[in-house]
Amino acid sequence: MWRDLETVGLDRDTGGYRRFAWSRTDHDLREWFAGESAARGLDLTTDRMGNQWAWWGDPDAAVAAGDPGIVIGSHLDSVPDGGAFDGPLGVVSAFAAVDALRERDFAPHRPIGVVNFADEEGARFGVACAGSRVITGALSPDRARGLTDVDGITMAEAMLRAGRDPDSLGRDERTLARIGAFVELHIEQGRYLDDLGRAVAVGSDIWPHGRWRIDVPGAANHAGTTALDEREDAMLGIAATIIAARRSATEHQCLATVGKVEVVPGAVNAIPASAACWLDARGTDPDTVLRVVDEVRDVVGEFDGLVTRESWTPVTHFDAALVRRLSERLDDAPVIGTGAGHDAGILANDGIRTAMLFVRNPTGVSHSPDEWATADDCLAGVGALADVVTDLAGSTG
Amino acid sequence: MWRDLETVGLDRDTGGYRRFAWSRTDHDLREWFAGESAARGLDLTTDRMGNQWAWWGDPDAAVAAGDPGIVIGSHLDSVPDGGAFDGPLGVVSAFAAVDALRERDFAPHRPIGVVNFADEEGARFGVACAGSRVITGALSPDRARGLTDVDGITMAEAMLRAGRDPDSLGRDERTLARIGAFVELHIEQGRYLDDLGRAVAVGSDIWPHGRWRIDVPGAANHAGTTALDEREDAMLGIAATIIAARRSATEHQCLATVGKVEVVPGAVNAIPASAACWLDARGTDPDTVLRVVDEVRDVVGEFDGLVTRESWTPVTHFDAALVRRLSERLDDAPVIGTGAGHDAGILANDGIRTAMLFVRNPTGVSHSPDEWATADDCLAGVGALADVVTDLAGSTG
Repeated sequence: MWRDLETVGLDRDTGGYRRFAWSRTDHDLREWFAGESAARGLDLTTDRMGNQWAWWGDPDAAVAAGDPGIVIGSHLDSVPDGGAFDGPLGVVSAFAAVDALRERDFAPHRPIGVVNFADEEGARFGVACAGSRVITGALSPDRARGLTDVDGITMAEAMLRAGRDPDSLGRDERTLARIGAFVELHIEQGRYLDDLGRAVAVGSDIWPHGRWRIDVPGAANHAGTTALDEREDAMLGIAATIIAARRSATEHQCLATVGKVEVVPGAVNAIPASAACWLDARGTDPDTVLRVVDEVRDVVGEFDGLVTRESWTPVTHFDAALVRRLSERLDDAPVIGTGAGHDAGILANDGIRTAMLFVRNPTGVSHSPDEWATADDCLAGVGALADVVTDLAGSTG
Repeated sequence: MWRDLETVGLDRDTGGYRRFAWSRTDHDLREWFAGESAARGLDLTTDRMGNQWAWWGDPDAAVAAGDPGIVIGSHLDSVPDGGAFDGPLGVVSAFAAVDALRERDFAPHRPIGVVNFADEEGARFGVACAGSRVITGALSPDRARGLTDVDGITMAEAMLRAGRDPDSLGRDERTLARIGAFVELHIEQGRYLDDLGRAVAVGSDIWPHGRWRIDVPGAANHAGTTALDEREDAMLGIAATIIAARRSATEHQCLATVGKVEVVPGAVNAIPASAACWLDARGTDPDTVLRVVDEVRDVVGEFDGLVTRESWTPVTHFDAALVRRLSERLDDAPVIGTGAGHDAGILANDGIRTAMLFVRNPTGVSHSPDEWATADDCLAGVGALADVVTDLAGSTG
């Protein structure tokens, strides 16, 4: 399976993947998913948002019987120059788990579904987890349709070109009803498991996280003629913000990142008239994260700057009983939180019984070609997933 | 004259001017110059690089007689969203000085030329003073022709479209021989004259100045999952550079500016894989400027970054005797250095007798719609220019 995926959307220059929603590459990935589904005799359905579901067993009969299916899987799209594992590892492992269960002659009590969520990274239209957000209603159809990419193409246009019907978007009760539980396997995006010497962990929650825009005013002037004490240099405020964010996050033991800066006019010999940067802050405790933002705001205020919240997502807890059950089933696998968003989090917030599995990543690197897992750890992940499904689909609990 | 220029290249949104070389706006400015020249019965010549010269008297006869002409003027192009005065004030004042001399029935001993230098700001092709650099040979014809704008159009193509012949570029002995002395009047780009309470100053030199590119490496990673102590965040090095540049320049009393930053990949939730910024440093003393750069380099080194020199221009002295003579003629006008480059500096470096006049700018602002001079100060500038030309063109010295 890996070999077929290896070259899809690969940028030979960067060694990274560029798998964006509703692109030609995305189409090829969907064809791959359909092929793997057909090869296993699974029933492929695609919901109105384009999420693909490959079912072993009849999901609707299970809903009628009051005992809906167990879904595993993840997504196939990537960030720009992303790695090979973020997303695909969860989908490939799900198919491999189905194979393992069949080799064991496992007879499921409930149907088992493998899912490929559409547009998880939001790399093209700027909203992450668009596939799960639309079917749960967390992202309204109007807003989804109107999102635009860098070329000004709306998601509605992009879906139309890909043969989808954007007019049909909206909360999808039928699709959601089929999910008795969802377990998403994902490459770890840090080095916690490597430090611990374990191959697999169970995810307990997604940290509260937010995004703030910081605007610092300045006065445009000539870099060669304006005395230092007559300057109002927006760049100094940005530098102070970057340093304050790191200092404050270190002190309060959470994460703060400035990854994007915009300077106006951005000329070498011009004192900036204004500058903006973006603060991404996350942590286990919401109060701590917001304290970091407050401390950054104090520094920004010294430069007459403004801090504006662009997004804030409170903590998302996965199903506590399910998390405990998975950990026990997997030799007391460690239970860890994560700072990254996932479709599993969107479903959990919709009240669906949800958990995650993480596979060790020795580099700890994510969203980069350097993300990696050993073949042994990938197989350990497949085994864990098969064990979990055996437990959940083999019983009525 | 001002009224005719007022709307040429004006951006109604920003209130600034966008007068770029070889554009339609540039063409309109040249037509204006030709009209003002014709209205005064001056002989208009355009050299191979497109610099316009309006002569009162025969410049070649004066060269033959060993007593070449006195040239005044400046440029008409602008930086993006520039002000109304930088450049045009020198050209308009030159024409007005001709008018004043004629009202006084002045009979010049030598010809008087008014110049409009092409592409002084370098806003389109990135090289400042292209007009004077090409005719002195400081910019080679091949390099000039190959410069490109943001749309990938070369200067050669742009000149062709504007009806010029780029093949004919090169050092222009005939044009240079006609310049017995050049006095460029310019709006001040600082508040020195305002603090002093004087309307006009004489320029003594152009400070040594340079431009350095600073590259800081990093490691791409996910902003939501990477522990702070596992990060190699290029943005921290940029912030430290910005702060070090200001601190060091303050300590050594010169100018340092970071006006441009580039971050890769530049996403809100991505720890930067690399980042670059540019340092513009200038001052009265070259050793001091280079000491600032060394101190910045030390800080950049702490982040494994690299500092690369992109340009360095040593101090340019205007003709000391001419500067003294102008200052005495103008009621002991203050004599000031400047951190900005000018066509006058290019000619001075070519051994031409050169000086500058600066007119008070109460805002001290430059390269912005806020640059400004009072009508009285503009008239004082015209008077000073007329007095200087009376002195220089009325005698054989």
